[in-house]
Amino acid sequence: MGTSSLAYAAEEVTTAQVHQALDAVWILIAAVLVIMMQAGFALLEAGSSRMKNAGHVAGKTILTFGICAIAFWMFGFGFGFGESNGFFGTTGFFFDGNESTAAALFSSLDFSQVPITIKFLFQLAFAAISLAIACGGFAERAKLSVYVWFGFLFTIFIYPVAAHWVWGGGWLHALGMQDFAGSAVVHMQGATAALIATIMLKPRLGKFNAEGKPTIIPGHNQVLSVLGVLLLWVGWFGFNPGSTLGAVNDGFFGYIAMTTQLAAAAGAVAALIVSWLVWGKADIPSMLNGVLAALVAITGACAFVEPWAALVIGAIAGVITFFTAQWIERLGIDDPVYAFSVHGIAGIWGALSTGFFAAPALVEKVGVGKAGLFYGGGWEQLVVQTVGIMGVFVFVAILSFAIFFVLKITIGLRVSEEEELVGLDMSEHGVYGYPEQMKALHQHEQLSSGVDRREGVS
Amino acid sequence: MGTSSLAYAAEEVTTAQVHQALDAVWILIAAVLVIMMQAGFALLEAGSSRMKNAGHVAGKTILTFGICAIAFWMFGFGFGFGESNGFFGTTGFFFDGNESTAAALFSSLDFSQVPITIKFLFQLAFAAISLAIACGGFAERAKLSVYVWFGFLFTIFIYPVAAHWVWGGGWLHALGMQDFAGSAVVHMQGATAALIATIMLKPRLGKFNAEGKPTIIPGHNQVLSVLGVLLLWVGWFGFNPGSTLGAVNDGFFGYIAMTTQLAAAAGAVAALIVSWLVWGKADIPSMLNGVLAALVAITGACAFVEPWAALVIGAIAGVITFFTAQWIERLGIDDPVYAFSVHGIAGIWGALSTGFFAAPALVEKVGVGKAGLFYGGGWEQLVVQTVGIMGVFVFVAILSFAIFFVLKITIGLRVSEEEELVGLDMSEHGVYGYPEQMKALHQHEQLSSGVDRREGVS
Amino acid sequence: MGTSSLAYAAEEVTTAQVHQALDAVWILIAAVLVIMMQAGFALLEAGSSRMKNAGHVAGKTILTFGICAIAFWMFGFGFGFGESNGFFGTTGFFFDGNESTAAALFSSLDFSQVPITIKFLFQLAFAAISLAIACGGFAERAKLSVYVWFGFLFTIFIYPVAAHWVWGGGWLHALGMQDFAGSAVVHMQGATAALIATIMLKPRLGKFNAEGKPTIIPGHNQVLSVLGVLLLWVGWFGFNPGSTLGAVNDGFFGYIAMTTQLAAAAGAVAALIVSWLVWGKADIPSMLNGVLAALVAITGACAFVEPWAALVIGAIAGVITFFTAQWIERLGIDDPVYAFSVHGIAGIWGALSTGFFAAPALVEKVGVGKAGLFYGGGWEQLVVQTVGIMGVFVFVAILSFAIFFVLKITIGLRVSEEEELVGLDMSEHGVYGYPEQMKALHQHEQLSSGVDRREGVS
Repeated sequence: MGTSSLAYAAEEVTTAQVHQALDAVWILIAAVLVIMMQAGFALLEAGSSRMKNAGHVAGKTILTFGICAIAFWMFGFGFGFGESNGFFGTTGFFFDGNESTAAALFSSLDFSQVPITIKFLFQLAFAAISLAIACGGFAERAKLSVYVWFGFLFTIFIYPVAAHWVWGGGWLHALGMQDFAGSAVVHMQGATAALIATIMLKPRLGKFNAEGKPTIIPGHNQVLSVLGVLLLWVGWFGFNPGSTLGAVNDGFFGYIAMTTQLAAAAGAVAALIVSWLVWGKADIPSMLNGVLAALVAITGACAFVEPWAALVIGAIAGVITFFTAQWIERLGIDDPVYAFSVHGIAGIWGALSTGFFAAPALVEKVGVGKAGLFYGGGWEQLVVQTVGIMGVFVFVAILSFAIFFVLKITIGLRVSEEEELVGLDMSEHGVYGYPEQMKALHQHEQLSSGVDRREGVS
Repeated sequence: MGTSSLAYAAEEVTTAQVHQALDAVWILIAAVLVIMMQAGFALLEAGSSRMKNAGHVAGKTILTFGICAIAFWMFGFGFGFGESNGFFGTTGFFFDGNESTAAALFSSLDFSQVPITIKFLFQLAFAAISLAIACGGFAERAKLSVYVWFGFLFTIFIYPVAAHWVWGGGWLHALGMQDFAGSAVVHMQGATAALIATIMLKPRLGKFNAEGKPTIIPGHNQVLSVLGVLLLWVGWFGFNPGSTLGAVNDGFFGYIAMTTQLAAAAGAVAALIVSWLVWGKADIPSMLNGVLAALVAITGACAFVEPWAALVIGAIAGVITFFTAQWIERLGIDDPVYAFSVHGIAGIWGALSTGFFAAPALVEKVGVGKAGLFYGGGWEQLVVQTVGIMGVFVFVAILSFAIFFVLKITIGLRVSEEEELVGLDMSEHGVYGYPEQMKALHQHEQLSSGVDRREGVS
Repeated sequence: MGTSSLAYAAEEVTTAQVHQALDAVWILIAAVLVIMMQAGFALLEAGSSRMKNAGHVAGKTILTFGICAIAFWMFGFGFGFGESNGFFGTTGFFFDGNESTAAALFSSLDFSQVPITIKFLFQLAFAAISLAIACGGFAERAKLSVYVWFGFLFTIFIYPVAAHWVWGGGWLHALGMQDFAGSAVVHMQGATAALIATIMLKPRLGKFNAEGKPTIIPGHNQVLSVLGVLLLWVGWFGFNPGSTLGAVNDGFFGYIAMTTQLAAAAGAVAALIVSWLVWGKADIPSMLNGVLAALVAITGACAFVEPWAALVIGAIAGVITFFTAQWIERLGIDDPVYAFSVHGIAGIWGALSTGFFAAPALVEKVGVGKAGLFYGGGWEQLVVQTVGIMGVFVFVAILSFAIFFVLKITIGLRVSEEEELVGLDMSEHGVYGYPEQMKALHQHEQLSSGVDRREGVS
């Protein structure tokens, strides 16, 4: 502050400069909204965990966000958006933030005049979301060191490559894949890694009873989960509308905000109602999953579909996530924060949905792919979307498996049974996240058993 | 992302286009800030409730927000801002987001060049605030289904009509009513519905003792309430300054932000001090109510009054809310989250305040109504404001009563005594919001009584 | 809303007007982000306190924010940014928000064309951060009235004067001190007051055992602390990039956002790793302190250093804060929320760091001071920075001491032992912040002792 060197006098400034500055302001704010989603994930996951793991679950979000930022600056940004060889970028590592050299390094981002530093921050925010989703599959049993190593390797070798395929000028972009803000690129990708992780980690102790039937391990704090989902909802207005990477587009980012909002609302209501009908109780965690599933699904479709279709896509996402969450459990997979049903299944649905619902006028506006089946566009776009989904899924699954396999045979993936029982706050960090409450809870159990003992005696 | 079709080349863009895009960015961000206020309400209300109801209270915020979005898209936006017949709008239902047809459908919004999709989102965010306030009156005893039905009907038949009267070109606008961002239209309206609801629902079990004296039922978590109020405070910088519906107004939205901030600060300090003087203790919930009351009061006045007047209006709001909250209780009305004293009384005060404090230069700038009594404007504006307040109050009260009456004789408004005692988390959703803590609390009570029993025996 | 007077027709608007409006939007949003940091501090401090003090700790944040706003409007803004006599401003008290008179009153802010009302809000938000840091030193034992008086006096007589020296055209600005967004002006300043406060208040009961060895008093809720830190991190994107006080600067605020992000990430990872190495456990509170220390350090340097240097500055900040936090404890000082190590030590480091790392091209761009030692700039800038740090430290320490001394001999600084034991929620506000949980905790202790007693008997 207190510096006049940075400011231009009003009369010197051209319309093009103001336009550039406006784009910069808008995308920086969008990036900040996406960064705030880390708080959303931290709360949603902590609220969905047990008290003995809550500090760990919240805290590791900051750790992985930090690791992601460093790794993305070192290699991720370059592999994702550097000069393309069709499969990954080859320039722009350890980027120095210099605008004058950026055009040569990151030509795939050159269509937008947002400063390269803000593009970096925006893309980093997306990578960090994908990593946060992936880490959801580790919950309540993975060692802290696994987060460190996987966070680093995912940010360098997995996320940027798949992002490059669709947004960095890679082969899926060339095929005409529609994925506006990343139903597949960000959400399904993270969820695929989460699925591999949760399978390789095996279920939490007590998740399945002796007969293999799943039991419910409720999260400890629905209020925090609700706040987390609302912060995610708010952040999504940076995620989707910000993916225009500019402000001067005849208000199109506003259109995207509208479809995003309608889908989320439909997902909330549809998931709540279906849980009410099926279970006889309006289940709040199911509603929260419904909101997120709808937002995940509309992420790829937001720019391609009409408002009514956004409502339909969101409602369907809410419903299929409700049922697939239970189906995955019945397969014997313990996905503690429902990462794969919320981000994976809904991500697949969202990426497929433009194949059905993409409206011709909007497709023309965005300039990617073809209209969907319901608008007479035929099966072509559906095929492209399916190819893209499978390509990203297979790539991420294989690389994630390879990383987890190496980690398993070297440092080990999972804490010991004893550590899991006492909780990861204690085992990984040496102190409870809720020290006073946990002390009360423990004394409690001792008291209970003490009283019972005495009662038995008397 | 990764699409060049959306971007204009820098040299092609005109000043008017950049101006439009800037307006769009600003109002979208303002809308996002107002949407974030849902998180503020969720936390404030959950923190002000008991542990057994906390998950329900937080979760229903998402439910009503979802219902509001769907209903507003279907009918609310059209009834509020469609072509006017003086009492409500008649066009724009199931809006398709098409900019080219918007001018004909929503001519009352045509003064601003913000994209119609962002106007939709901004107005929806306001409707959802009003509904959230209304639902505050239901707290800790209404059935979940009441939220569903009332949310739907309020968003279609109540909110848009009153909003239309003042902002959609209706009869109160023609009279010259001043209510810049909605002290009456949004806050008093929601609070009136909350008042009717809380009267018809009757007090919570245990709120009044055998002699009819009110007892205190403290909320379970002041930290969450504080966070809720701070999120609301932050969101209000979208609510009030965003109500300019544009950015190019010689910085006038900044002026509004300044009056908003000063009022809120005065409300916090005044309410805390008055509680300290009256009760001998600086009461935090009273201070939180003081902040909100001041923000509610300045909502209508923010564009019409000078900074010193903003401080006065805020301080008075903080004080009268403190006293009216107790007065309402003494009337035998149990308003669990103080919806009517915070949003109703302060909303009335805010709507009246311009009749006293509206400064001539600011009135001229805004172009609505006349100067206030203290600036030599005479009694005229006060009369107009009074008519507006009474009009909105009576309309909302009657329609709310009618809706609640029908709901009462059909589905019933209130959970059973047993359900209320066990808590709405369990009765409406089948699981506690804090399962581990509630289990400890319960074992506790059993233990206590067990110990007492034994102690009595020994 | 509903007013056409505020809007310009698109064709009437000049590029200069749009430029002004864009600057206004950007800095208002930056101010809102900084205001949201109050929520971050409220949660971080409440989460780092014990349950019996949590409501008080969270609630006083709103109180001091309110007091700060009123005092800053009355005198602080004028003393800080009014016409300079070299040491403080002399015009602009009780500012009426009038743009036409602002240039004469606040000429030091005239380099930016942001509306004066938004400059007011932005500077107020900074003052409130500095005050919030100062109050961190009071935690868990100061009387509420001390917050009231100190908040008022700090905002009028301390913060604006030091801010004036560097940003208001004072003597440190004339010397060429580099402190872009306030490592020294905001953070070290608040931390210096916190240090004086925490020394004069003496340690909390039980912090040091009979041999004078520090014991750990863990905070009660790491999840809230994590959320607090994430909100602060997000808010910092207003704090640092917003300190450009404008949007049209070739995207330089984006560059600042990038250095800010990289530093924070490095601080998180470095602090976690060092705690892991030293203690054998990855300590979450240490990581949170590392994030904040890095953000504090990069605050002054963000505009002057390259990305790699931002990582280095952040990592060093995280590490030195870890060690100094323990060192300060070993000196017998009880700094409950680590205000001095996080904001003071890291603030000093940040202010010094440009003396080492300031890059010539960036120094030229900003137009303040000289390049750093590592870029061949010699020792000169390091000397200037050292003089500035010492000047601010001595001034703040003396005035803070004087204020606390007068408060000590008049109203008293600290609650009684009995009040401290029962907690400040009860002693200062008459009710627990967590009434249900505290009741359970108490019954618990009674039960425990009861059981013990009986067990002793049997």
